[in-house]
Amino acid sequence: MTEKIILGIDPGTNIMGFGLISVKGKKIVLLSYDELIMTKLDNHNLKLKKIFEHTLEIIDKFNPDEIAIEAPFFGKNVQSMLKLGRAQGVAMAAGLYRDIPITEYLPKKIKMAITGNGNASKEQVAAMLKQLLNIKEMPKHLDATDGLAAAVCHYFNGGKSTSEKSYSGWGAFVKGNKDRVK
Amino acid sequence: MTEKIILGIDPGTNIMGFGLISVKGKKIVLLSYDELIMTKLDNHNLKLKKIFEHTLEIIDKFNPDEIAIEAPFFGKNVQSMLKLGRAQGVAMAAGLYRDIPITEYLPKKIKMAITGNGNASKEQVAAMLKQLLNIKEMPKHLDATDGLAAAVCHYFNGGKSTSEKSYSGWGAFVKGNKDRVK
Repeated sequence: MTEKIILGIDPGTNIMGFGLISVKGKKIVLLSYDELIMTKLDNHNLKLKKIFEHTLEIIDKFNPDEIAIEAPFFGKNVQSMLKLGRAQGVAMAAGLYRDIPITEYLPKKIKMAITGNGNASKEQVAAMLKQLLNIKEMPKHLDATDGLAAAVCHYFNGGKSTSEKSYSGWGAFVKGNKDRVK
Repeated sequence: MTEKIILGIDPGTNIMGFGLISVKGKKIVLLSYDELIMTKLDNHNLKLKKIFEHTLEIIDKFNPDEIAIEAPFFGKNVQSMLKLGRAQGVAMAAGLYRDIPITEYLPKKIKMAITGNGNASKEQVAAMLKQLLNIKEMPKHLDATDGLAAAVCHYFNGGKSTSEKSYSGWGAFVKGNKDRVK
């Protein structure tokens, strides 16, 4: 049985969460989790550079076979979405640069996969992951566990992008979600 | 007098424009312009991958000293901004990966720098660039000229990021533009 390594990413412009799991059949093992904290960097470009470099570093260290990324499609306003889009973009660039398939999951989908409740709190997700992956010490921030959650969600979905209706581009997404697009 | 190469980028999710100029004192020479057309790619990740690879390819071919990017801060809706943010992000990642300083310019600022009118049409910008850079044959789409315009605008601004008030992160931008942020 082959082993598969999944990297889960929770992109943010202030804290970025990364979680790595190894799966072999039905066995999931926690490999690593990590947080990139950028609150002290007040330069937007520097943040993006850090995100790219850090993501590439993790990829080159663990050689993940697949990447799962938490990606909300909706935000408060256009500014925050542009900002988030850039953060997602640079993280995705690192994965795409190494030819690793990336699957996106809506936050709700991830919560549902981990806890059975699409509206679960971050704490509930973390508690379930702690049990599931036998984590002794939990990370300070819950962004790392959100990264882990994305990876585990991807595994639960069979590593296929069927979760998000495997949307092939925004056109298809918008088409399939007319009620959600203004 | 040292020569400086400036790469200007007009990021978009369907067509991405690139323009390269060489400046030496007051002399500007057109080096190259290029368009990455992605309308036939219906996979969002594939588009982002293409943008990253193509931008990196251009950077490694021409070794620009500085990058200027056209970056609107406002868009129609959150979806389009997330999409645009990702496209910007991957293009910026390529530049940041090669340690090249990136300066952002609002579309209005670029039009103003080239034509003296912040509301100039794409055709007016192209016509001015044609004259300025002695371009014989204009590109099919006006995205390449928009990339060139960003590069020339950057040169006109002395290659300094003073144009956009040298905002150091979104916090500063929002602070300095309260009336423009909803």
